[in-house]
Amino acid sequence: MLHTIFFLSSLLIISSHASVQDFCVGDLKAPEGPAGYSCKKPSLVTVDDFVFTGLRAAGNTSNIIKAAVSPAFAAQFPGVNGLGISVARLDLAPNGVIPMHTHPGASELLVVTQGSILAGFVSSANDVYLKKLKRGDVMLFPQGLLHFQINSAGVNSIAFVSFGSPSPGLQILDFALFANDLPSKLVEKTTFLDDATVKALKAVLGGTG
Amino acid sequence: MLHTIFFLSSLLIISSHASVQDFCVGDLKAPEGPAGYSCKKPSLVTVDDFVFTGLRAAGNTSNIIKAAVSPAFAAQFPGVNGLGISVARLDLAPNGVIPMHTHPGASELLVVTQGSILAGFVSSANDVYLKKLKRGDVMLFPQGLLHFQINSAGVNSIAFVSFGSPSPGLQILDFALFANDLPSKLVEKTTFLDDATVKALKAVLGGTG
Amino acid sequence: MLHTIFFLSSLLIISSHASVQDFCVGDLKAPEGPAGYSCKKPSLVTVDDFVFTGLRAAGNTSNIIKAAVSPAFAAQFPGVNGLGISVARLDLAPNGVIPMHTHPGASELLVVTQGSILAGFVSSANDVYLKKLKRGDVMLFPQGLLHFQINSAGVNSIAFVSFGSPSPGLQILDFALFANDLPSKLVEKTTFLDDATVKALKAVLGGTG
Amino acid sequence: MLHTIFFLSSLLIISSHASVQDFCVGDLKAPEGPAGYSCKKPSLVTVDDFVFTGLRAAGNTSNIIKAAVSPAFAAQFPGVNGLGISVARLDLAPNGVIPMHTHPGASELLVVTQGSILAGFVSSANDVYLKKLKRGDVMLFPQGLLHFQINSAGVNSIAFVSFGSPSPGLQILDFALFANDLPSKLVEKTTFLDDATVKALKAVLGGTG
Amino acid sequence: MLHTIFFLSSLLIISSHASVQDFCVGDLKAPEGPAGYSCKKPSLVTVDDFVFTGLRAAGNTSNIIKAAVSPAFAAQFPGVNGLGISVARLDLAPNGVIPMHTHPGASELLVVTQGSILAGFVSSANDVYLKKLKRGDVMLFPQGLLHFQINSAGVNSIAFVSFGSPSPGLQILDFALFANDLPSKLVEKTTFLDDATVKALKAVLGGTG
Amino acid sequence: MLHTIFFLSSLLIISSHASVQDFCVGDLKAPEGPAGYSCKKPSLVTVDDFVFTGLRAAGNTSNIIKAAVSPAFAAQFPGVNGLGISVARLDLAPNGVIPMHTHPGASELLVVTQGSILAGFVSSANDVYLKKLKRGDVMLFPQGLLHFQINSAGVNSIAFVSFGSPSPGLQILDFALFANDLPSKLVEKTTFLDDATVKALKAVLGGTG
Repeated sequence: MLHTIFFLSSLLIISSHASVQDFCVGDLKAPEGPAGYSCKKPSLVTVDDFVFTGLRAAGNTSNIIKAAVSPAFAAQFPGVNGLGISVARLDLAPNGVIPMHTHPGASELLVVTQGSILAGFVSSANDVYLKKLKRGDVMLFPQGLLHFQINSAGVNSIAFVSFGSPSPGLQILDFALFANDLPSKLVEKTTFLDDATVKALKAVLGGTG
Repeated sequence: MLHTIFFLSSLLIISSHASVQDFCVGDLKAPEGPAGYSCKKPSLVTVDDFVFTGLRAAGNTSNIIKAAVSPAFAAQFPGVNGLGISVARLDLAPNGVIPMHTHPGASELLVVTQGSILAGFVSSANDVYLKKLKRGDVMLFPQGLLHFQINSAGVNSIAFVSFGSPSPGLQILDFALFANDLPSKLVEKTTFLDDATVKALKAVLGGTG
Repeated sequence: MLHTIFFLSSLLIISSHASVQDFCVGDLKAPEGPAGYSCKKPSLVTVDDFVFTGLRAAGNTSNIIKAAVSPAFAAQFPGVNGLGISVARLDLAPNGVIPMHTHPGASELLVVTQGSILAGFVSSANDVYLKKLKRGDVMLFPQGLLHFQINSAGVNSIAFVSFGSPSPGLQILDFALFANDLPSKLVEKTTFLDDATVKALKAVLGGTG
Repeated sequence: MLHTIFFLSSLLIISSHASVQDFCVGDLKAPEGPAGYSCKKPSLVTVDDFVFTGLRAAGNTSNIIKAAVSPAFAAQFPGVNGLGISVARLDLAPNGVIPMHTHPGASELLVVTQGSILAGFVSSANDVYLKKLKRGDVMLFPQGLLHFQINSAGVNSIAFVSFGSPSPGLQILDFALFANDLPSKLVEKTTFLDDATVKALKAVLGGTG
Repeated sequence: MLHTIFFLSSLLIISSHASVQDFCVGDLKAPEGPAGYSCKKPSLVTVDDFVFTGLRAAGNTSNIIKAAVSPAFAAQFPGVNGLGISVARLDLAPNGVIPMHTHPGASELLVVTQGSILAGFVSSANDVYLKKLKRGDVMLFPQGLLHFQINSAGVNSIAFVSFGSPSPGLQILDFALFANDLPSKLVEKTTFLDDATVKALKAVLGGTG
Repeated sequence: MLHTIFFLSSLLIISSHASVQDFCVGDLKAPEGPAGYSCKKPSLVTVDDFVFTGLRAAGNTSNIIKAAVSPAFAAQFPGVNGLGISVARLDLAPNGVIPMHTHPGASELLVVTQGSILAGFVSSANDVYLKKLKRGDVMLFPQGLLHFQINSAGVNSIAFVSFGSPSPGLQILDFALFANDLPSKLVEKTTFLDDATVKALKAVLGGTG
């Protein structure tokens, strides 16, 4: 047993410092840098930092889009910080839609786990890639491209979407154009939409200007 | 309408070449490099390159581990080539187990979609992170660390696992040690297992030497 | 002089192979991979592979947007292949506009070299960042976010925009929505635009469906 | 309008945290890491963090090299922190020269916006790539290689140079050899320059030893 | 000399901030992020931050494996922080062995500098790559794969191993399985080892459960 | 045993394709891309692709610098292709010197294995980091910075240097300035060396112009 102790001690200097290199659970209150949040001290990390239970239940779909996005990104699930991956749950009630949007920082893989979803994206060459997906089907949405998901079943549909980034971002087109103080004139000039349309959507989505 | 044509043509040189930058669907028969497969010509790419239907059905769990892993990695689903992400389906029959293994090239996120799974990983500091996961729970396994999944329900359990790489690799511990021609003496000397154990497992798993 | 020869020959094996590592001028006809085009043979590379003269003259702004984008991306300027950087020239006639768009794969830095430009972008949090830029001013547009540029001078304005990628991509919002065969019903459902608006813009921009 | 509120609230958890992922404006007084400066709080970020006006005017060329380099790197323009890109302005009076130098951390793209510049770089294979550039011409200098720029017009020349890094670094050959306390004997032994030359240049450039 | 001062001052703003971009010596007491430790202030950095003398002497091989691993990773040698590289010294007494292990975060290059070493690794495809190495031989172990080294000389052998990461991590198989509180039943179920074997190794290596 | 076959077959699709993801041994005759050489077919790869014996013997130091650099970069040792790491052997006879040089693409770690070496580098801030290294000492040279090594022992010294890139490149200052056709006038204008010095070194090193 004495040998074992020698063995252990000779390797201890490596092991005792190695843990933090395996992962970097985000400390949401410490400084954040371009690569992500600062790391929680390894000695304080428990298995619960690597488990996220917030996707068990369906999101609330009693809204205008009849849909909900429940993210498990680094800000909600600090265990993924620095590890290049994250996930979210999509719930789509009948006629539900995840409106046209982009993720500026990551590609997305969608897996349908209940119901059926019509999904599509548009490439830089303006080609349309459109498919009705069944349960178990997987669809890829390349980084930064406009895409959407629509419930194509008469019942609730569910999907889990994973991203190649712990913080993929989300820019919803209508929000970007109509839910802030970007002046209507600028929206019109840069999108060719007419004034009535822009003002109507600003009214619905809470935009000003 | 003439103006439109000018508009279109002035931007055409960008758009016509941009497509391939959005994605690089793998051409499995062309040269492969460190970053992945060569790209299929964009003009030949269709939506079906971005949709994978091979995970609709359960994998065959009538085997010794009562479990199946069905991958949608770049080699099976060339649409993910170069995009830093992939997915697989796990099916675990009652008492099924995905044995101790690593993915040398990527972290993993597991989502339980049916049943219940006991999962765990071991860090470089030899700490154990172990949790029983319910439907909808997510668990993270950091890159390159030993981990496993065990069905903890009396019924079939299903999970979808996503990876931060289009080709995460998979090294199953028992296969690496006992299913090849690595001489028994070397296995014993480097694992401290005794000769009888090594030879018994080699016999079961098809190893020689 | 004999010593020199020894010196040269002892180091020759390094130098003779090192060149291709310095750069990888794109061979546009060879296989392309996720990291870019295959490399032209170093022995065939000349200084002209690293010089692009296509931005000397203004682009043609006699079009509906009164603006032109002239790219020097890897597809036009193969010298930047693999080196993480590219550039384009913007010409804006009076009242010219570069419509709302994104670059899915890179951040952008704009330098005004003539005239004055009103530029803006919208973040994932839907905040608007808007500024009138004078000659010599620099503005940053983070990766993947919607942005635009409008001539705010009574005369022609010019800017050079550089990107942190040899192939930053370009997705123009109106083209993505209205210049392809994405069915009008899907555009409407995912953008909340009304049918008349969608069909009018499809008519102008050449879309079908 | 009630529905809108539901819509907004269901997506709010994503959006409210997403901003910081779009960008990481450098907080120059907070801890710095290998990936760059810590991020300024998103709520404190304004458009002025993304606009740099320090390049409007020419740099002072009343010096021995008749030239000036005005950088907009992360240390001067914190908006580029973490976004893989930066820019600088070069002013070259008649006979002005940017002496032989390298950028250890990034490739460079130069655009001539006034006058004419003779520029060149040397590859690892010791090949010389040399070109006289006119207004509007672009030249690439691959990462880490020795290069220079010389005014080849009888008047002031201006160029904007962009880099594939927010902090490309700058090592000017003569400064590295002759403007510090590297002992003359070591300079001589490692460059084959004679003692008189080394001491003369050390005298001019302020070196000691 | 006046000109020199102009020259120096015109370039000073660049140089004075550039240093920290060249390197980021780890401050082990400051916040750590996914990309590594925070940087020590450049003004406090000395040459001793870039020199590590801890590998001069042999590690203590008076232990059960007759071997020692002495790391110069970021935690021991903060100068490598953020620079993608590190090194360690291996000492193997006669019959010494570095047991089966992985480095989750980096590939490894081994150079034998004394004696002779039998080394091997197993790929994801379960192929075995095995070689007896002489003094001066180099062997590569790809990232994340199981590998080992055994002294094949009758005398002490020494090797230096370098890694493509400042913190490559180290997961020793026997420690991961038998030197912690991972329940024996789970070890058995996920490795197919029998109860007696697992308990015997746990006893030797200090495991519980 | 039947179960084993099921087990094997259920996992075979993963394993059979996984090998190439573990490594990408360079095929020096196939197309090369920005990320490195194309991969040799995994079925043709043997252990000898991962072992390099070319560093067993000392390089020839009978030359003007009394030193030799023997590289094991991707071009000599294709096994490192794509794996972010390489190595070289330095031999320095008494008074031998590795002249001032840079590696444009990688940081370097030097380990002295025989004799004693005086090594140094200069930062972007023109600070000098200089140290006499003994056997077993390690010194780091950050990416792209000028550095050198001088034998400081009366006997032959040996070092192994590893790099954080499979193809780090090598630009030797005197070769870049004096061993090619870069016109003397340009060398003089960009380095402030006088005409006699430049022509003398061009004569020794084989430069023209």
